[in-house]
Amino acid sequence: MNAYEYASTHHDAYLDELKSLLRLQSISALSEHNAETAKTADWLADNLRQIGMTRVEVYKTGGHPIVFAEWSGATGAPTVLIYGHYDVQPVDPLELWDTSPFEPTIKDGNLFARGAADDKGQVFAHIKAIESILKADGKLPVNVKFLIEGEEEIASEHLDPFIEANTDLLRADVCVISDSHILATDRPVIVYALRGLTYMEIEVHGAKGDLHSGAYGGTVYNPLQALCEIVAALHKPDGTINVPGFYDRVRPIDQKEREALKQIPWTDEEFFAETGLHSSWGEQGYSRREQIGVRPTLEVNGIVGGFIGEGPKTVLPAKALAKISCRLVAAQDPLEIYELVKKRVAALTPAAVTSEVRLLNTGYPASVDLNSRAIEAASAAYERGFGARPVYLPEGGSIPVVATLQNTFKIPVLLIGLGLPDDNLHAPNEKFKIDHFYRGIDTAIALFEQIGQMTPEAARS
Amino acid sequence: MNAYEYASTHHDAYLDELKSLLRLQSISALSEHNAETAKTADWLADNLRQIGMTRVEVYKTGGHPIVFAEWSGATGAPTVLIYGHYDVQPVDPLELWDTSPFEPTIKDGNLFARGAADDKGQVFAHIKAIESILKADGKLPVNVKFLIEGEEEIASEHLDPFIEANTDLLRADVCVISDSHILATDRPVIVYALRGLTYMEIEVHGAKGDLHSGAYGGTVYNPLQALCEIVAALHKPDGTINVPGFYDRVRPIDQKEREALKQIPWTDEEFFAETGLHSSWGEQGYSRREQIGVRPTLEVNGIVGGFIGEGPKTVLPAKALAKISCRLVAAQDPLEIYELVKKRVAALTPAAVTSEVRLLNTGYPASVDLNSRAIEAASAAYERGFGARPVYLPEGGSIPVVATLQNTFKIPVLLIGLGLPDDNLHAPNEKFKIDHFYRGIDTAIALFEQIGQMTPEAARS
Repeated sequence: MNAYEYASTHHDAYLDELKSLLRLQSISALSEHNAETAKTADWLADNLRQIGMTRVEVYKTGGHPIVFAEWSGATGAPTVLIYGHYDVQPVDPLELWDTSPFEPTIKDGNLFARGAADDKGQVFAHIKAIESILKADGKLPVNVKFLIEGEEEIASEHLDPFIEANTDLLRADVCVISDSHILATDRPVIVYALRGLTYMEIEVHGAKGDLHSGAYGGTVYNPLQALCEIVAALHKPDGTINVPGFYDRVRPIDQKEREALKQIPWTDEEFFAETGLHSSWGEQGYSRREQIGVRPTLEVNGIVGGFIGEGPKTVLPAKALAKISCRLVAAQDPLEIYELVKKRVAALTPAAVTSEVRLLNTGYPASVDLNSRAIEAASAAYERGFGARPVYLPEGGSIPVVATLQNTFKIPVLLIGLGLPDDNLHAPNEKFKIDHFYRGIDTAIALFEQIGQMTPEAARS
Repeated sequence: MNAYEYASTHHDAYLDELKSLLRLQSISALSEHNAETAKTADWLADNLRQIGMTRVEVYKTGGHPIVFAEWSGATGAPTVLIYGHYDVQPVDPLELWDTSPFEPTIKDGNLFARGAADDKGQVFAHIKAIESILKADGKLPVNVKFLIEGEEEIASEHLDPFIEANTDLLRADVCVISDSHILATDRPVIVYALRGLTYMEIEVHGAKGDLHSGAYGGTVYNPLQALCEIVAALHKPDGTINVPGFYDRVRPIDQKEREALKQIPWTDEEFFAETGLHSSWGEQGYSRREQIGVRPTLEVNGIVGGFIGEGPKTVLPAKALAKISCRLVAAQDPLEIYELVKKRVAALTPAAVTSEVRLLNTGYPASVDLNSRAIEAASAAYERGFGARPVYLPEGGSIPVVATLQNTFKIPVLLIGLGLPDDNLHAPNEKFKIDHFYRGIDTAIALFEQIGQMTPEAARS
């Protein structure tokens, strides 16, 4: 019995185990769940020991623990680092769930539970792939390390310091992450680029307190008006970003990339259905996939100031706050972008008010060379697991750990998602297609086999 | 004993009565105070009966009752309508009060209580003036009507319909309102102009729900961005309002008025101390008093949209809301201004989003002819009460009933305030200077005497 056959005959048992994992309420954002979150790390460690990983440790951090596991018996073969996370998003609004978020429920071939796709189900497919190979063959074709954190949903505060402090422990030749989605079962996706992030707050201050608009209206520069003027002036009328230097490290789109993206249309019809919008918009000269994948943004995520209750109140606010974030591409540096925005906001701020720009969060953009051997291995693995060659897509979101791993170890990071676009991540009724869980196990088995046929140097290149 | 002497010998008793009135918690905005608010109307009606008003009624409305009282024994003399309100603002934040807001407390010559100045203390001075004259002389030199409402702090919803339905009941030759403040005890103020108001909400809509900025950033026009652009474009860089037609009914400033206002400086020093600001701003070519008094404004009173909690959340908001209000002057019409702003916002709204402008509140601007006989009478009365001639000021706030009374009865409305700028209206530690209460009684006695020497026609002119 080979590994695929072993996996196939153990589908029910694997699914039962996944359900047990999903019952654990590891909501990292809520401190009242801290004990359950720690229990989840221990549960995973136990499972990793049971499947035959030779070294398993749960590392304490300043926040939630990190699970590490290793199997290092494939002398001379490449080492694969599998990253995932066991923490999940909060479940509110609970009333919008059709089933209990922590009582995994099967319906129409889907497993409904918080964390089913993000990310417990996806990382667990890798664990069960390892188990299947070890049970069928007694050994793995590659060395394997697991790095499973518990703070992905709360900005991974302790992950980068852990990686930095444990480079020898974590060193590998290729990294695999399944924490994204594909277009359809017959359309798997390798994500080859992720946007970075600079998240800021702009605060504008005027008088020492709110003023009556009758008594002072006309004599003071309204901070909310100033904030609107600043935010408005951060874009040009054509929708491009009006911050000097902002585009300096953005590379022009590659013609080959452009041609490839043309093959994977994102139609108006699809876009309108998803968003409820009735018209297209975006930076001119770029398709929607290019706008998302290879172009940076500056977005206002929130604004608050003055009176926001019901009815009229004639107040001149003393201050106003905007949350602004940039999605970054190519060689854009989040800290440099912060400095550029800060400078621009200072230049735009009218003399009659004061402003400050605070940095809240950063993440570096990342991209993987599509010509690498590892990408080819992942493509072949998808073909084995999903019966179709993958398409290559740049992704608009940010997974900061990708850049950290790339920069620390100089290795390819394979982003091979197993979810679907409608898995309701971060929302009520999160689900994971059970068929994808099984296909994911097969894909992972195939990936380890493929990489096992390479030298470590080839895997790294 | 004349009326002044009678008042003087009854100061303590009048103050005790005012304290009783101030103990009644007539917060019109809070329905749990409805019974107490109704009780306040009844208390006033009783007091008006006791002082000798011949007809006193408490009229029910759709909201809080209106107190009406009349004395009509001065055949052939003018009729004076005294407007005031017995409702008060809420008291939160309660922890910032040094004394209990509904237990009137005397400190340093001030009476501290919610409503002390706004407006119970001021309207009660008129009642006690009438009492003093009636007790001293057995009759009044003028016919008197009181119109005291209970909804001034909640936009006077039922006042205009009441006035419209009761023109014969309320008809008068001159109206007096004490619901404002003077500059100092030796610097009384007659307010000769009030700004009007158009209060609106602008709402901009984009996608059917909030979108993830990674998944959609770059492909959708952010409604909050659009709102900022719209708000920014409602002003020109020089601070004037960029709404076509907005200034059409604003009259150029009168040179005589300009000269008069120059005599009452509002210094940078005072302005900076009041606001905590360190620089001047405002429409060029106008002094601060002119900016407040004779120029219109368009202010953003509040904005809310997207994520406004702590920390970063990468959301593209589905909608955004701004509260916008205009202070109006001269012949500007609040409804016309609403139409102009609506039209301008529609023109500014990018095609990729939708917007709507909703009208929340309106009030007409008002002004009194400074050459009228009634103004001269009020000036003389102030001189009797406060020992100084008043200055004439246009006021930046709005008292919509002034325009209603002017337009309904075509009579002068005398705005003779008794409060001080630091009376903490609408704020913790509201107070009323006890000396001003007494001076207010004398001023009112003098005013009725002055008007009593005119024909009704002269009082109206």
